[in-house]
Amino acid sequence: MLKPGATIGILGGGQLARMMALAAAPLGLKCHIFSPKGDNPAFDVAAAFTEADYTDEAALHAFADAVDVVTYEFENVPARTADVLAGHCPVHPNARALAITQDRLTEKSFIRDLGLPVPDFRAIDSLDDLKAGMAALGGFGVLKTRRLGYDGKGQAMIRPETVLAEAWAKVGEAPCILEALVPFDRECSVIAARSANGSSAAYEICENEHRHHILSRTILPASVSSQLGHEAMAMAEKIAAALDYVGVMTVELFVAGDRLLVNEIAPRVHNSGHWTIEGAETSQFENHIRAVAGWPLGLTRRLGRIEMNNLIGDEADRWEDLLKEPGAHLHLYGKAESRPGRKMGHVTRVWPEKA
Amino acid sequence: MLKPGATIGILGGGQLARMMALAAAPLGLKCHIFSPKGDNPAFDVAAAFTEADYTDEAALHAFADAVDVVTYEFENVPARTADVLAGHCPVHPNARALAITQDRLTEKSFIRDLGLPVPDFRAIDSLDDLKAGMAALGGFGVLKTRRLGYDGKGQAMIRPETVLAEAWAKVGEAPCILEALVPFDRECSVIAARSANGSSAAYEICENEHRHHILSRTILPASVSSQLGHEAMAMAEKIAAALDYVGVMTVELFVAGDRLLVNEIAPRVHNSGHWTIEGAETSQFENHIRAVAGWPLGLTRRLGRIEMNNLIGDEADRWEDLLKEPGAHLHLYGKAESRPGRKMGHVTRVWPEKA
Repeated sequence: MLKPGATIGILGGGQLARMMALAAAPLGLKCHIFSPKGDNPAFDVAAAFTEADYTDEAALHAFADAVDVVTYEFENVPARTADVLAGHCPVHPNARALAITQDRLTEKSFIRDLGLPVPDFRAIDSLDDLKAGMAALGGFGVLKTRRLGYDGKGQAMIRPETVLAEAWAKVGEAPCILEALVPFDRECSVIAARSANGSSAAYEICENEHRHHILSRTILPASVSSQLGHEAMAMAEKIAAALDYVGVMTVELFVAGDRLLVNEIAPRVHNSGHWTIEGAETSQFENHIRAVAGWPLGLTRRLGRIEMNNLIGDEADRWEDLLKEPGAHLHLYGKAESRPGRKMGHVTRVWPEKA
Repeated sequence: MLKPGATIGILGGGQLARMMALAAAPLGLKCHIFSPKGDNPAFDVAAAFTEADYTDEAALHAFADAVDVVTYEFENVPARTADVLAGHCPVHPNARALAITQDRLTEKSFIRDLGLPVPDFRAIDSLDDLKAGMAALGGFGVLKTRRLGYDGKGQAMIRPETVLAEAWAKVGEAPCILEALVPFDRECSVIAARSANGSSAAYEICENEHRHHILSRTILPASVSSQLGHEAMAMAEKIAAALDYVGVMTVELFVAGDRLLVNEIAPRVHNSGHWTIEGAETSQFENHIRAVAGWPLGLTRRLGRIEMNNLIGDEADRWEDLLKEPGAHLHLYGKAESRPGRKMGHVTRVWPEKA
């Protein structure tokens, strides 16, 4: 258990690390950010930063010696990086959570083996595998590289008319997972926190809308039955427990009729949890910091009806109008450069619960 | 009007500057803190800092060139410091607000001249003045140095049995103000924000309890009539307008029966406004940043019944219990050293409004 004044090391210098650091400070904890050269807005709110590559072992050793615990804002932390750091201090979430979530096939298998529902899937290592898989799935599927997928990159949608060789080329003939296409009604997610002593707290399920494979909008309450909502929260807590997880994790789900299917896990705070900053008693960022510090979790209670909209690329140019809007909570990430598709900020609106 | 990415310079490196910086970041603004060598917890959350004396003009010039606007966390900014900075960039609140609030006599006269109620007072420049003043006030009064008073230092309570020469010695025979002792029922304050375009927004009046002249507890709603509450908010907005004020200011008031008396003004965010972080739609810190950035103000609406307790000295050792308490929002200021009487943190509790 850390004491106030301790330092949390964070791998990654983007907006998630930035919001973690902003949540750590009121708790009397310092943050030290480690990130490669680039646009690192988290540096602006941290007590210290190291600008170095994740493979720079001298820098990693010095960093790990300067901090009391390490966490990260992205799941693709190289295994060797995590190993080097773990030789000095605790790394949360743990190496197993990283290893499982870095590989879509391993991840889906892990979830299925927990007895939780996932879309039908199979491993694809060749064009022949792909042909056999598509025959089994009935002509519709999504082909995804097993590793390093992010926001829809490294994916190919497959329909009956798709030339499979082209799809296979599109994903670079890399080891893949082929998933059945789920005719879902909506996409949802659950953010859950789990502490070192094993207690956990899930936030209420939220409903997400994507545009061009990037999260666009999150709303609460989600249009799902209370029963499904509780099932989803229980699934997230079950996954966290199975991983002996410490920190905040995110479970993305498809809702199809009265069925839930787990789509993927992110071993980190998540864009679909930004609503918790103003919309929950304790934000996902504070609960992540509490968990990695070995502290008790805060309440996850929702405070009203909520809408969170991402500001992608030049959508952030609307900042002046958003500042004028009563009750709109503007968040800008302090990125130096706006690019199409880049997450530049978000805005959250919270309304009183309907009577 | 600043654009996101601009830098706000803040004089002072304590908890108020720290909470300002934490409020500036989500708005996409950077902070650069200027403070003398010492325990400066605001440095830990700022994009840049300068550790130098307020009289170091070379450092002030460099600082002012590096920022887009300057503000401060304390009212005793030396006039020369503010002048040097104002030669480079806007300083908010303005020099007049500083000059008036740095001198208790000037301040009380200014408030009285606005037609607002203040305790009876007179200037004291000699022991003879003090004798005459006490005779006029009927034996009870508070003698305060005109300048540099803070948390009860430089004050002497005077009763009929007080040896006036001793009281005069206690305040160092400095230019003083003698104020009538007000038999008040409660101490309250109003935090008000005023933007560059002249619009203003006051927070609801709060009730404050002091121990050893240091704020201990703030509660809302205050035990005052709705009419008095609105009068107090109007007083704060009147004072801000008269000063052509930009930023957040605080008006401390005595409530005596159905009367309000202005006790003092602080040209800054204030300990009695810490409740606004969780307890209001927009915090005092965010509204101060919005104002000095030339941006529109956010809503000041209160979100529930509120209690804010300061953690003074070793009271902050209770952090572990407070973390365990559901709904308690802990704030620790990251100070290196705890001392008796030192503000180490605070905790805010917000409950739903009674039906």
